[in-house]
Order: sequence, then C-alpha cells, then structure tokens
Amino acid sequence: MSMAVRNIRRVDPAVIEGFEGIGVATIHEAQGRKGLLASFMRPIYRPVHIVGCAVTAEMAPGDNWMLHVATELCQKGDVLVAAPTSPCEDGYFGELIGTQLQARGAAGLILEAGCRDVAELTKMGFPVWSKAIFAQGTVKETVGNANVPIVCAGQLVNPGDLIVADDDGVVVVRRKEAAGVLAASRDREEKESKSRVRYQHGESSLDVANMRGRLAERGLKYVDGPLGDE
Amino acid sequence: MSMAVRNIRRVDPAVIEGFEGIGVATIHEAQGRKGLLASFMRPIYRPVHIVGCAVTAEMAPGDNWMLHVATELCQKGDVLVAAPTSPCEDGYFGELIGTQLQARGAAGLILEAGCRDVAELTKMGFPVWSKAIFAQGTVKETVGNANVPIVCAGQLVNPGDLIVADDDGVVVVRRKEAAGVLAASRDREEKESKSRVRYQHGESSLDVANMRGRLAERGLKYVDGPLGDE
Amino acid sequence: MSMAVRNIRRVDPAVIEGFEGIGVATIHEAQGRKGLLASFMRPIYRPVHIVGCAVTAEMAPGDNWMLHVATELCQKGDVLVAAPTSPCEDGYFGELIGTQLQARGAAGLILEAGCRDVAELTKMGFPVWSKAIFAQGTVKETVGNANVPIVCAGQLVNPGDLIVADDDGVVVVRRKEAAGVLAASRDREEKESKSRVRYQHGESSLDVANMRGRLAERGLKYVDGPLGDE
Amino acid sequence: MSMAVRNIRRVDPAVIEGFEGIGVATIHEAQGRKGLLASFMRPIYRPVHIVGCAVTAEMAPGDNWMLHVATELCQKGDVLVAAPTSPCEDGYFGELIGTQLQARGAAGLILEAGCRDVAELTKMGFPVWSKAIFAQGTVKETVGNANVPIVCAGQLVNPGDLIVADDDGVVVVRRKEAAGVLAASRDREEKESKSRVRYQHGESSLDVANMRGRLAERGLKYVDGPLGDE
Amino acid sequence: MSMAVRNIRRVDPAVIEGFEGIGVATIHEAQGRKGLLASFMRPIYRPVHIVGCAVTAEMAPGDNWMLHVATELCQKGDVLVAAPTSPCEDGYFGELIGTQLQARGAAGLILEAGCRDVAELTKMGFPVWSKAIFAQGTVKETVGNANVPIVCAGQLVNPGDLIVADDDGVVVVRRKEAAGVLAASRDREEKESKSRVRYQHGESSLDVANMRGRLAERGLKYVDGPLGDE
Amino acid sequence: MSMAVRNIRRVDPAVIEGFEGIGVATIHEAQGRKGLLASFMRPIYRPVHIVGCAVTAEMAPGDNWMLHVATELCQKGDVLVAAPTSPCEDGYFGELIGTQLQARGAAGLILEAGCRDVAELTKMGFPVWSKAIFAQGTVKETVGNANVPIVCAGQLVNPGDLIVADDDGVVVVRRKEAAGVLAASRDREEKESKSRVRYQHGESSLDVANMRGRLAERGLKYVDGPLGDE
Repeated sequence: MSMAVRNIRRVDPAVIEGFEGIGVATIHEAQGRKGLLASFMRPIYRPVHIVGCAVTAEMAPGDNWMLHVATELCQKGDVLVAAPTSPCEDGYFGELIGTQLQARGAAGLILEAGCRDVAELTKMGFPVWSKAIFAQGTVKETVGNANVPIVCAGQLVNPGDLIVADDDGVVVVRRKEAAGVLAASRDREEKESKSRVRYQHGESSLDVANMRGRLAERGLKYVDGPLGDE
Repeated sequence: MSMAVRNIRRVDPAVIEGFEGIGVATIHEAQGRKGLLASFMRPIYRPVHIVGCAVTAEMAPGDNWMLHVATELCQKGDVLVAAPTSPCEDGYFGELIGTQLQARGAAGLILEAGCRDVAELTKMGFPVWSKAIFAQGTVKETVGNANVPIVCAGQLVNPGDLIVADDDGVVVVRRKEAAGVLAASRDREEKESKSRVRYQHGESSLDVANMRGRLAERGLKYVDGPLGDE
Repeated sequence: MSMAVRNIRRVDPAVIEGFEGIGVATIHEAQGRKGLLASFMRPIYRPVHIVGCAVTAEMAPGDNWMLHVATELCQKGDVLVAAPTSPCEDGYFGELIGTQLQARGAAGLILEAGCRDVAELTKMGFPVWSKAIFAQGTVKETVGNANVPIVCAGQLVNPGDLIVADDDGVVVVRRKEAAGVLAASRDREEKESKSRVRYQHGESSLDVANMRGRLAERGLKYVDGPLGDE
Repeated sequence: MSMAVRNIRRVDPAVIEGFEGIGVATIHEAQGRKGLLASFMRPIYRPVHIVGCAVTAEMAPGDNWMLHVATELCQKGDVLVAAPTSPCEDGYFGELIGTQLQARGAAGLILEAGCRDVAELTKMGFPVWSKAIFAQGTVKETVGNANVPIVCAGQLVNPGDLIVADDDGVVVVRRKEAAGVLAASRDREEKESKSRVRYQHGESSLDVANMRGRLAERGLKYVDGPLGDE
Repeated sequence: MSMAVRNIRRVDPAVIEGFEGIGVATIHEAQGRKGLLASFMRPIYRPVHIVGCAVTAEMAPGDNWMLHVATELCQKGDVLVAAPTSPCEDGYFGELIGTQLQARGAAGLILEAGCRDVAELTKMGFPVWSKAIFAQGTVKETVGNANVPIVCAGQLVNPGDLIVADDDGVVVVRRKEAAGVLAASRDREEKESKSRVRYQHGESSLDVANMRGRLAERGLKYVDGPLGDE
Repeated sequence: MSMAVRNIRRVDPAVIEGFEGIGVATIHEAQGRKGLLASFMRPIYRPVHIVGCAVTAEMAPGDNWMLHVATELCQKGDVLVAAPTSPCEDGYFGELIGTQLQARGAAGLILEAGCRDVAELTKMGFPVWSKAIFAQGTVKETVGNANVPIVCAGQLVNPGDLIVADDDGVVVVRRKEAAGVLAASRDREEKESKSRVRYQHGESSLDVANMRGRLAERGLKYVDGPLGDE
C-alpha cells in the first residue's frame, strides 16, 4: 500500500523558466481561476517567488518519514509538495531537511502542516509555504507515499505538475496545460500593463473596462447625496 | 435596491490632520473603548499608520464590482472600507485597483475579505488591512451599494466616519465625534507620556496609578513564598 | 481566593545563560517532545530569541489588572507568562506595561491573549508572543493570581520554570529538569551539526540516519515510474 | 457613558404575529438578502421558531451584568439580543436569568457569547441562539448599555427591530420595514408553494424558473459523456 | 470553460446495495484509511446513513446555479456532491432543490458550503452533510461545471465514485475499487463482531489484539503507583 | 520515558455519588470559576450527565495505542480523560474500545480529539465528550503515558481528580478539594432554588441580588426613551 515513485514526467524547462517573475494571482486568472491552494498556506518570509515541478509526499499525521523519502526524489528546480492524510499542524520540516533540499537544488517546499526552524530557513533563503509555524516534533513510524497524486490544501496536485508560489500564496498548473497557461499569463500581463498606465494617469476601470453600461443594466443607481444627517 | 452615493459629509480636514501619528489603541481608549474592528483585520505590511474619511462599499460574495464603483468615489485622503454581504476570503483587491486608488490620493483600504498582489502593494506603499491574503479571483456580476452604512469586521461604518488604522488594527470614529475624540486622545497621550517617564525610572503602575488600595479591597493577598517544592 | 506570591525559586543563572541561542525546536526535542505552547502563540517581531524564568499571572477575561501586579514581581531576566481564565483576545498589554517590564530587565512576555502597541514594542525591542494583536482595551476590576501554576496555551507553567521563546514559538522546561535538558540540547546540537555537514555535501538522511532498512520493513516499495499518463 | 433606555418603539403586534411560522431563509430573501446574523449563531435545541421585538444589551467581556439590566426591560413577546464589546465565549446566560425572561413572557435570547444550563433551558422550552455552549462563569463589575443600537454577530440591531430566529439562524428586520417585509415574505411563500408542487411532480427548476436560456448564454455546454476512463 | 456532463459510469447496483448499513469508519479502514472528507462536514440530522454514486457540481462562491444544473443530472440513488471554487458558507441549498432531488430519488447531498431550511429537510427526511447551516442566499450569475472531478472537503471526488455518509461523516470510494472495498469492509465487520463479543465479556484489546509484546518492545513500562501525593 | 501507572488514589465514593445530578456550571461556580475544559469539548448526545474519577492517557498525534492501555486501567465508575501531545482531530475512539470501557463499568470518555461510531455509541448509551466527530483512523506505533498528569482542553487533569460532564461541558475538581466543592455546590443549589421561585413569580435579579445600588454607583443611568427616530 506504500509506494515511492522514482521517475516522474516534468514540465519543459523552458516553460518553467518562462514563469519566473509571473505572479500567482496572474497565473490563477490566466488559467480560468482554478488551482489555488487554500489561503492558510503562507510563506515563512516575504518577498519570495518560486516556480518548479511538484514532487509529492503523502504522510501520516505527526509522522514526517515520507518527507525524508520524497526529499531524495527531488531534482534541481523541483518543488516538494507535502500533506498529511488527516489535518495536522506538527512541525514536519526544519533546517536539516531544508539543508538536504537546498543541496539538491530544490526550489522550495509547500507543506500543509507545521514548519519549524523558520529563523534558520529564512537565513538560508530556503522558502516554505506552510499551514502553521510550530516546533512540535514528529515521529518516523508509519510509511506513506511519494510521487503519487495528493490533495494539498484543497487542490489536487499530481507529481510533475507546475507549482508557482509567491507572497500571495500557491497555485498548481497541470503539467500538460503549463505552456498554454504561460502564454495566457503573458497576454494578461501585457494587457494589465496597458491598463496600469491609464490608471496611473487617473482613469477609472469603469471606463477602461467599459463597466458603466452593464452596471446600469444590472440596476445600479447613482444618487447625489449626502444622505441623512449622519 | 442598488445605490452609489456620490457626495458624503466628511470630517473637517484640520481634525483629520490632527490624528496623524496617534495610535489606534489610544483613540480606542479615548473614545470609551468602542469602534474597534475585529482582530482578524491585519495590515499587509508594517509599520504603517493612516487616517482618513470612510468611503464604503457593500459587495456580493466573490464579486468585487462595487470596489471599482467605490474607488471612483474616493477623494484625496479618503479610506475605502469594503465588506461582502456574507463571509468571503476571495482576493477582491490587487495592485490594479490599488493603482487607481493611489492615483486618486486615497490613504488606504480596509477590506473584510482577501487581498492579493501584496508584494506589489507593499512596493507601491499602498496599505491594506484585510481578513486574508488570497489570490482567488472574483467576478463582476452582481451590484451592491457604495457610500451607505455598512458593518465591516463587526463595526458599523458610515460614509464620512473617520478611520484610523495602524499595526494594531483599525478603529472607526463617528464623524460628529471626531473633534472630541481628538482632544481626548491628546489628553490621553500627554498623561501617558508623564507615566512613561516614571515607568522608565522604575516606578510601578501600582503606585503611579494608585492601585494598591483597590487591589487589597478586592481581595488580593500577598504571600512571601516560595510555595511548595516545584 | 486571590494571591500574589512574592518569592519564587528560579533556575540557576548559569543554566539560563547556557540556553542562549539554543532554539525552541531543539529544546523541545531534547526534553522528549513535550512542553511546547500552542502554535497560535506568535512573536510580534522576528527574528527574536529569549530565555528566562517564568513569573506567572492568571487574569480575568478582559481584565489586565494582574498583569500590573505580576510585572512588579519580575526580576532582571524573568519572562512574564500570562493567561486569562477563559479565552480572550483583548489587548491586555501595550508599551506602558512594556516600559515597566523593560525597566525591570524582564526578557519578554508570553501572553495567551491580545497585544497592542506592537509598533512601539518593536521599536523598543521588547518581545511579546501573543495569541492576537488587538487594540481592544481591558478593565481593572477583578483580581486573580500571580506566581501560581497556570495553564498557558495548553501547557502547565509553574513559577520559576524555564521559558525559551523564538521565531518558532515557546517552550517550557521544568525548573528541576533545566540543567539536564541543557545538556541534552547541546548533545543534540552537536549531533545535528555533524549531520548538517553531510547534508550540505549532498548525502540523504535515509543514509545518514540509516532509515532504508526500516522503511522497507514497514512496507515501502520503490517503483520506477513514471506512472499513468498524467 | 453607560445607559439603559426604558421605553422603545416596537413593531405593530399584528405584524409580529404575521411572521409566525415564516422561516428565516424566506424573510432574508424577501428583504433583499440582508439582515442575517453570522452562521455561528446556533439554537440550543431544534426545531424552534420565534419572532419578537429586540431589546438590546451591550456587555463587557466576561461580565453579564447588563443582561440582568436588559432582562427587566423586556416585555411579553420581546427577544433579548446581547453582544459583548469584544469577542467572548463565556457563559453569560443560564436558567436563572432564563426563568426571569420566561416569567416576563420573553420569546427568546440571541447571544453572541456562551450559553450554559442548556439541558434545563431545553426542558423549560426557553430558546437561545448562541455562539458557544460554555459553563464558564462571568462577573458583575462593569456596566454597559441597554436598548441602544448594537452590532450582534455582524449585524446592526436597533432596539425595537424585529427578530425572527429558527433552526437556520437569526435575521433582523428594521422596525419600519417590517410590514413590507411581511408582505414580501408571504408573496414569496405563495410563489414557492406553487413551484414546490411542480418539483414534487418531477419538474426541474431549470424549466420552472426558465434558466436554460441564460445558462447557455453564460457559456454552459452540455456534453454527453462519460468522459475518460475513471 | 463551463461544462455539464450528462452521462457518467456508475458503480454496479448490487455493490451499492451491499454497502447499506456499513459504517463510514469501517469503510475508511477497509480501504486503507483514505477517502475521508474533512471533519467539518456534518449531517443536518442524526441518525442517518446513505450510499450512492456521486454526481458532482463545481460552483462559484455565493452562486448556486450549478446545483440546479447538477440536480437534473441525478438519477435514483445518486448522491449529489457539491463544492464552491473558493471557501463559502452561504446557504446554497434548501427545501426547494431538496424537493427536486427527492422527486428524482436522490439519496442525499454532500455540500462543502451552507445549507438552509434544515427543519423542512429534516421533516422531509432528505439528508444533507454540510460545512455550515446558514440562511444566507445565493445568486445565479456564474456558471461552473457538473459531473467533472472536484475536490470536496479535502478529497478528490470523481463522478460515479461511491459515496457513503453517516453520523460520523462522509467517505468516497473509487468506482473501480468499490467491489473490493465492500469485500474488505465485510471481512472487517465480521472480525470486529468476534472481538466485540470478547470485549463484552470483559477481555482487553491488549490481549485480543496481542499488543502487550509490542508495547513493551516500544518502551512502555508499567509502574504500580500511586505516584506523588496529588 | 513511557509509563502506565496501575494504581491511583480516587475520590471517596460517597463524595462521587453526591455529585450525581449537580450540573457542571454549578460546580464550576462553587469552586471559584476554575477547572472548566475548553468550550470545543461537546457531548456526542444530549441530555447526559456523568461523574467519576479521572484515568488519564497521553497519546501521540494520530495514534490511539495508549487509549487501549488506559482502558484496561479503568475501574467501575471511572472517567477516561485522553489528549494527544499535539492538536489532532483523528478518530481515536469508537464502539470497540467503548464496549471494553462499558464492560469495565467506566462512566464515559473525555477526548481532546475525534470520536467515531457516534451512532453506535449513542445506541449503547456510552457518553463521549470530544473535540470533533471524525472517522479518520489512527495507528498503533508510538507509546505514551497513562495515569500521569495531563493537560486536556486547556486544563490540568491529575489521575484520580473528579470529572463531571454534562450538556454544558466538562469540569475537573481536584481530588482533595472534591468534598469541599460538593458542599459548596449544594449550598449554591439551595440558594439558587430560592431565587428561582422568586424569579418564577416575576421578581428581577436586580432586586433579588441587590444590584441596583452598585449599578448606579458604577455609572449606569436610566433614561426614559424612546431615543431618536429609528
């Protein structure tokens, strides 16, 4: 019942590289508002931005054994994505596994559980998005799975899917959709960049995005005011 | 049923200016411990301090349309205060609306929902107090209200009320009470400033604030100790 | 029913000093994974590390009177540990009591409630671990206890117990166990330091900590992959 | 600063009576989806349905004194609505105040805090909607206000506003809007009653409410399926 | 981007029938401790037990339109499983859609959002497991998907997967694994039934399940006690 | 480090019996408002009332092994009190261990974790107060402690302490204080019984408990009203 898969299909390196600097919010919009992990997943330091392919770990509650197993499966640029099989905030991860991941060139860790040694990890520059910061230790008694599809913070993550994470949170992009989402993200960035200039010059999105007609149609009335006394 | 009010009564600019640098905790005490928004309203960066008049937006869950409408109603120095009609953590706000608000001279945003693009907003220096940081997008399908009284994070906020927000949170001061609360806040600051000097010299608030008698009266006994073995 | 104990037994100063720089996660592991306060106890600024003996305060909800009483009982190096008798996030503590504690040489405050004036406390360099940041004021009407055993954030804390707090959270060490835990913590640090070097050179904890045999024994199978199409 | 208002304007008794048996969800819809208290307000027993005019109490955290004051202000049929000035789950209310309220003919209690003696209150048939069930006692040291506007569970409640509460939760209707909302609620009930019969006979709301066209217009495509293998 | 799939593959009716009366906890164990939805999914009444094939709905926050669409796709015995694309507790479902589902013979609803009309649904005997009970209404403006794989309460649910729900919560069983899990569940029930008789006669699981040796091996020591004075 | 203590000191059976029928709220008040477990501890069915001596279990997260060990240490009338060493909602307990406890005559279980098989336990009449209802299974890999002092739901519980639990929650009474608390509880009940009769006849606690003078002294003003227009 317990399995670690050594090889996975990854996203084309050129596509991964293309996502450098593109924000989670943009990507999430560009792929049709899907793939966002829950808002409780927060980076241990800011600002931060990473992109890479998911190596996954499914772990028992209070047991970080599979994190060690999955760490060894990471290649340069990968993002380790780990979740317990039932909710747990224990400190599954600290600077010792962080040192191993950094030595292997991993880009970061997405952990639906607790992280510890956050001062050291910050100093090392190894980024983690976690549900909690908690020094509570874990055991190594129960095996789980590595590089199988998992649900992490409300989203299905397959091994090899693309992960982008920044100050806003974490988004997963399906491996086969990554190139398309990259193109759509760039389009969106370009379009936003034009709007931004107009906004900087004082224009309103009601005009820039042509909202006035639809607002009126849906029933919005403007009144002069002020109303009442208060 | 859906309305945007163009003009509102604002607090006297001299009074607004007077609040510069006065902390939320002081103001909250000075006005009789009322008007504080819930503790889940946190600034996206620190340190930060703003003061301004409320422009309000009441929005549907997962729909940020009225934020665009209310943005256009903001004048220099205003604080936009926005809440959904039912609890929602979606990312209603990012740097594009932020750019519009900043271009109009707005002081900041108080948002009982999610905020995104926090790295960009931090770089721009546009402050937001929100319930969550979440990249989840919203739609523009349902109209609501702008510049009507709303409940935001547990407090009634009327358009034109004074908003002060800092690292500790957010407080609302009724428009007509603003001048009085300013005077009371300054009194409190002056009094605290004298106590602070005495505390810095090692005195105890038990003496400075004359608490010893009342403590004894209410039943506090001092014992020498140590007690037990542990 | 209400009592303030003036004198308590403290940990040997040499032992306290020995804990300087040793992390909460290490200590927690070294004493057998116990003594950790709940993960909602977060420092108001980072990075931070303190160690000292507990002076305790048991307070009524929404009433910070005993915090004033306990402050006077603090000596140089002590850590004030305070909890309400029922859950409360009110702002029990701000820079005025902070000034008193700092004047007395206290190392910091552990508060299972709300903290305010966090900008000032950060500027002063007085560290607080709290459950919330909230400007909501408290009253001074009901007495409680000082320097009695309390439960704070899920852990029993006796007056004179050792408290260590850092970016990861807060741990309590029993007074009589402090010297032993210090030795065990140093052992652990030394051992980890050797592992760290091996990890930096690319070795895996599966080898360094000899996990491969036990993993197989517990049923972990490696498969080559990739699996399926996705 | 502390005030108890003896007389308030109430809703016309005929209108109150008209709301008997009309559900909270129906009323909430009929008045334009507003006025609903937060979902954490739950009845201590089910099934239950009450309607009456609000008598309000604003209380200090952990202090139920104003509940006693407000109880005396209740008349036959009133609903007591009470909230602390900062979040608190203490057991403000039990069967002794419940006995007083029942003796005065009050219809029930809406309490944004903790309730205790729930077995006795259930046996007595005195309904309470509360945020928590918690035996934790309160003190009587700090005065507050009675029969002033308060925010309870996220909604503004004025003295004399109409309160309806059932298994689904609690809704507030403005005093002056009560007659209109009653008429709208009855219309809605009648309309729903016709739809219900059609649904019972197997019709779909897609037809009964004419949704098919708009669904297609907004982009919904039907595909035959089944899709994939899984 | 928006799709409703009309036909799905379902589990063999004989297998579905076989699960009648088998508890969620048993099935969850029998399939290797996986597939359990989050603990916040609670039935609106108890006792209750259902089993059926999943028809799925992916909905916008605060928008229940796809629930209407998915309802029409349900056949006799199906279980509707619905989740919003971002967290939302609004009352997506009440007795009117419930009447439609019941008329179609659906077994129940699993809803990661709010349910309303719980008194009527209880009277009708239509079971719902939901995240909240909340009368807050929804709109019908944004389309989503029906009968596509969704993540509901932390678990991936494919259309046609088997759903079993009872007082303990909700479990999903993959369509192709259903027959095997049924056999394993029956084995487990039989084995437990034998243990139960021994427990009723006073035997301990330490003997029945042969735990004593392993407990000692892992380091458990028995001491006579009592310890200390307290 | 892992220990099970066979013999503990218990409260005098006559004292235990004396607590039959006395509510948690009364006992909590009678012992000076202390000893109450957190409000998230809820009974799986109501109404219910138990009293007995604590047998304690300290367990690893996601591991119920020590529950089996502690079950065997229970005698007729005991209450098993169990908590994990870090927060966990897994289903540690179901009807099979329940059958063992019932066969030994245990009065009930207090569990700061998840409970499953709640339908069966309800039918058996074996009461449990838990933090969650969750079918998620646990492992048996890590040993802990039995009959040592533990913190459960925020309260220190020593083996042999008295536990009373009812619809309102759970309270712990120190073994040596039990007789005194019983006397104080009876006094309180008698006094309340007299007040109740007066309340049933329409008197107000403002008179019965002589509050009017103190209320005025603390600053409460009565005004006639109604105020304003609304």
